[in-house]
Amino acid sequence: MSRKPETPLLDKVHVPADLRSLKPNQLKDVADELRAEMISAVSTTGGHFGSGLGVVELTVALHYVFNTPDDKLIWDVGHQCYPHKILTGRRDRIRTLRQGGGLSGFTKRSESEYDPFGAAHSSTSISAAIGMAVANRFAGKADKSIAVIGDGAMSAGMAYEAMNNAGEAGNRLVVILNDNDMSIAPPVGAMSAYLSRVLSSREYLSIRDIGRSIFKRLPKPLGDTARRAEEYARGLATGGTLFEEMGFYYIGPIDGHNMDHLLPVLENVRDAKEGPILVHVVTEKGRGHPFGKAAADKYHAVPKFDVVTGELKKSASNAPQYTKVFANALVQEAEKDERVVAISAAMPSGTGLDIFGKKFPDRSFDVGIAEQHAVTFAAGMAAEGMRPFAAIYSTFLQRAYDQLVHDVAIQKLPVRFAIDRAGLVGSDGQTHAGSFDVTYLSTLPNMIVMAAGDEADLMHMVSTAAAYDEGPMAFRYPRGEGLGVELPAFGSPLEIGKGRILKEGSKVAILSLGGRLGEALKAAQELDLRGLSTTVADARFAKPLDQALIRDLAAHHEVLITIEEGSIGGFGSHVLEYLSAEGLLDGGSFKLRTMKLPDLFQDHDSPEKQYEQARLTAPYIVELAMRTLGRNDLEDAHKAMA
Amino acid sequence: MSRKPETPLLDKVHVPADLRSLKPNQLKDVADELRAEMISAVSTTGGHFGSGLGVVELTVALHYVFNTPDDKLIWDVGHQCYPHKILTGRRDRIRTLRQGGGLSGFTKRSESEYDPFGAAHSSTSISAAIGMAVANRFAGKADKSIAVIGDGAMSAGMAYEAMNNAGEAGNRLVVILNDNDMSIAPPVGAMSAYLSRVLSSREYLSIRDIGRSIFKRLPKPLGDTARRAEEYARGLATGGTLFEEMGFYYIGPIDGHNMDHLLPVLENVRDAKEGPILVHVVTEKGRGHPFGKAAADKYHAVPKFDVVTGELKKSASNAPQYTKVFANALVQEAEKDERVVAISAAMPSGTGLDIFGKKFPDRSFDVGIAEQHAVTFAAGMAAEGMRPFAAIYSTFLQRAYDQLVHDVAIQKLPVRFAIDRAGLVGSDGQTHAGSFDVTYLSTLPNMIVMAAGDEADLMHMVSTAAAYDEGPMAFRYPRGEGLGVELPAFGSPLEIGKGRILKEGSKVAILSLGGRLGEALKAAQELDLRGLSTTVADARFAKPLDQALIRDLAAHHEVLITIEEGSIGGFGSHVLEYLSAEGLLDGGSFKLRTMKLPDLFQDHDSPEKQYEQARLTAPYIVELAMRTLGRNDLEDAHKAMA
Repeated sequence: MSRKPETPLLDKVHVPADLRSLKPNQLKDVADELRAEMISAVSTTGGHFGSGLGVVELTVALHYVFNTPDDKLIWDVGHQCYPHKILTGRRDRIRTLRQGGGLSGFTKRSESEYDPFGAAHSSTSISAAIGMAVANRFAGKADKSIAVIGDGAMSAGMAYEAMNNAGEAGNRLVVILNDNDMSIAPPVGAMSAYLSRVLSSREYLSIRDIGRSIFKRLPKPLGDTARRAEEYARGLATGGTLFEEMGFYYIGPIDGHNMDHLLPVLENVRDAKEGPILVHVVTEKGRGHPFGKAAADKYHAVPKFDVVTGELKKSASNAPQYTKVFANALVQEAEKDERVVAISAAMPSGTGLDIFGKKFPDRSFDVGIAEQHAVTFAAGMAAEGMRPFAAIYSTFLQRAYDQLVHDVAIQKLPVRFAIDRAGLVGSDGQTHAGSFDVTYLSTLPNMIVMAAGDEADLMHMVSTAAAYDEGPMAFRYPRGEGLGVELPAFGSPLEIGKGRILKEGSKVAILSLGGRLGEALKAAQELDLRGLSTTVADARFAKPLDQALIRDLAAHHEVLITIEEGSIGGFGSHVLEYLSAEGLLDGGSFKLRTMKLPDLFQDHDSPEKQYEQARLTAPYIVELAMRTLGRNDLEDAHKAMA
Repeated sequence: MSRKPETPLLDKVHVPADLRSLKPNQLKDVADELRAEMISAVSTTGGHFGSGLGVVELTVALHYVFNTPDDKLIWDVGHQCYPHKILTGRRDRIRTLRQGGGLSGFTKRSESEYDPFGAAHSSTSISAAIGMAVANRFAGKADKSIAVIGDGAMSAGMAYEAMNNAGEAGNRLVVILNDNDMSIAPPVGAMSAYLSRVLSSREYLSIRDIGRSIFKRLPKPLGDTARRAEEYARGLATGGTLFEEMGFYYIGPIDGHNMDHLLPVLENVRDAKEGPILVHVVTEKGRGHPFGKAAADKYHAVPKFDVVTGELKKSASNAPQYTKVFANALVQEAEKDERVVAISAAMPSGTGLDIFGKKFPDRSFDVGIAEQHAVTFAAGMAAEGMRPFAAIYSTFLQRAYDQLVHDVAIQKLPVRFAIDRAGLVGSDGQTHAGSFDVTYLSTLPNMIVMAAGDEADLMHMVSTAAAYDEGPMAFRYPRGEGLGVELPAFGSPLEIGKGRILKEGSKVAILSLGGRLGEALKAAQELDLRGLSTTVADARFAKPLDQALIRDLAAHHEVLITIEEGSIGGFGSHVLEYLSAEGLLDGGSFKLRTMKLPDLFQDHDSPEKQYEQARLTAPYIVELAMRTLGRNDLEDAHKAMA
């Protein structure tokens, strides 16, 4: 049930310029209407929720004070941008958020000139804003770049690298530190503790403080010693020493829901000659959402819900989620072996490690948004004989690629990589797709790379990884539900580099790696019906390849089709390389085709539709097999399987 | 001329335990002998020089105070480890440093139990040390993990992520901040400025300060407010507030060459119940090297030299270095177009951007060791219409892989990646090899990936990149010298996705990507001599492929061999994928073979020998062509070409 709220003021605001024609004292009402509109919209679309609700007032104030889109407003991660989208010409499409063909759940350059830099991964905003500030300096423009970044995102090294270089941007850079003490998981680490200390030790800046105009009190930089003494003095007063040491003018903390405080501060910042400036704004995540604060973690991202009762609309599901299967299997391994520990990077719930952490709080490590550290920290533990499992989404593992190469693979340290969200991920879209891991991992010497064809095999892979101490091992599995196969009581280690045959045939062979196994089986049925006897094999390993299996399939079938939920350069390419090197592609009647993700960043949609668009569903397998065999006489596979 | 110094004390020290049997007052002499031995060794081997000379006393003190190898001593980057190697059982091989079959120029686990964690890329040590500290906690061992990290390495986000998580390690973690104000290039950024302020504002800790035992003055943590006030007070006194905000006990600054100061501080730290502790040690890079301080930058790494005169032994060279060709070409483009800017990450000299920076100081950005920031900073500039060239070594670009995907490729922003040190790099070995970039870049949608076959083509590629605004573009080139081809006055843009044919033949085709082009031409000559008429083509583009060229080569030759200086999943794999998808590998007499780097991390040696070991030289091309044609009757290609 989605009732649209009454929003008389908001109805007049189509773009931020409309907002700027309002009186300051009308902005609180605009914000209230904006919040109601956002709740109504998300109830029909699902999506990130708490973050957007926390920045409603901030969004209004920023667009009011700054001259967007000339001033560049960059939302870090971008999951808090729903109110921003409503204010920037996209209200009419806000109920298409995250739906196929609809608005992205994140900021996106192609969507609006008010999104100067897209995001979805964390902690990129300051770097991008500095780049834009420097470009504006070259262009002789005074326009500002404003990065809005959460306290959780501050745990990433990338944010620090940017702060370390912020001096480059001068007063064209404004960083809004949106401190809500709740990034995705509860915050961890020293930066978070620091921010808590700042907050606990003083009140918000008062109207009087603000009225005095912070900058007027600021002398020009003096000699180093004097400057330092002054900084410490200010640090004691304002709590921002750490940021001042990093070269920022620090202002805060400010109540991020109080328009009377936000506006004068932001106006001061806008007009300041000094810079870069960091404004420390405190907000309440999920503020004003209809079902109380208790479930703040749960409401980071929500499925669709009933706006009155708050009831979440669950999708019907029989098979267990891969994430949960992984978590339970890891708990089982940890019960047997106290060397098993688990590491996540700010995703304990998303990776299922919250389950592990409840059982083994001492053996569960959430390092915050810090994938680089996560991997090398795990490598350090592995070097000392622990059995670390680093559970990181495929797309986020990209953040730790050098650590994977330099600290893990070169040293052949047995870090276990549990790679969730492999392949296409649905409504989170382009930025969250796990398309590249098989390619970027399998090219590395010493790596073992597995992909789970079903949820039972995932259990076996967890077990395989737990037992393997000779070097690094990765296993990937999709977002969502398994195939519904029977689960064993316990996983048992697989033979390294050995696949399995699920169905024997004689004409066509489908060699699947990972989550397309169900489609491969469906396609085989259809091909059988068409008189093309079809073998289905699950490679299990992208590296090392099951060479015997591949040779066997090549020797006894006319067509071999590989299929995987990944991009070029991965499993299919490795099979091609192997067969080519062995001369098994030379002459003869045997034909090899690879099916993989297309060479484009696919837009968000349901995973089913995404795979359909990627042409990686059963009908496309059937079609490719037939075409390769020259069987164009047969009727269209899609119609037959519809 | 390499005279071995007299080293009576050092001669008694084979392992650190021998050192510990000496009296404290003998350690200064040990250090002096160690320095002399190191200078003598490096004069015969070449290698990193200044860093090791700066930590001679520190190395002696650490091994004296801590119980290595049980206590884990981790040298960040590892290029300062030569004195450490001399003290830890490797003195007899120290004159094999960086030579084929000899000691690595970095720390390496497989080389010694005193190298608990290998390195060569920067800023990994704290993460690894935390991992080991946690492992020791689980094992109930009190052993310490000591990370020695330079001030330059502190600019990397990874170090910050680790510091943010250091609380996990408690007093098992000791970080030695080796502050020499000179990482590789002059230091940049706020952290560096902060450290300078700390140093300029106070003297070293005096013996009296040290004698009072810092920790005894430290009360147990109080309430948050009191603790904070105390921290600031200590910060004012000791200058370490930033680190204390990050949760460390800060001690320093300490004179890193004064054994009387180092020993008591390190003993205190070793015995402290509190932790983690950061000791801020100040050293002079290149201390005591024979040719004065002036050339400190130059002596970061040196070729072999005469120990008496200081004369560097240059290798004879005709052709220009690729690095220099790139730099000059970029200057030319920048002269034509003021939107051209250049970004490097602490490698202005290594990437040739020092040349650019001299000409265009305002358009040259060195962000420090901060590849993640470098790439997204460049993306921000590109979003605003600048034409940024990010010049980053292949191996270091791994640090920015997610930024490449998420900020650049997905948004199709025209960041130009100048990828130096592509392929095998010689004496820097495994960790510096640029083996994976073609694979990890070419799998990304929207990327254009080029590799220079010779130095003239590199000029054209710079020009191509400057002219191309539609999306990201990378071009890679090897370490070292070009082929000696004639250079044009100016580069001119290449047609996107078009290769070139250098030599036409009819039986064998060699399709080269990048730096193997010279070997391909040599092989073709030999094959011609053997009656196998050979075509040589330079693909220029790994992505997009020159499909017409590939089809043409496949149609008119019996054998097509691709060759590249990269690992599996790259150019050859893409060619295979294309031909397979087109059905051009089906039946027929055409045969394709790919030559690529082997599936292992190759040890250091000269690049020539490394490529020989990789079987990517002309004789191996000849051999493969003959074998593929079934021409085993011909005499061995290697003998013929020797």
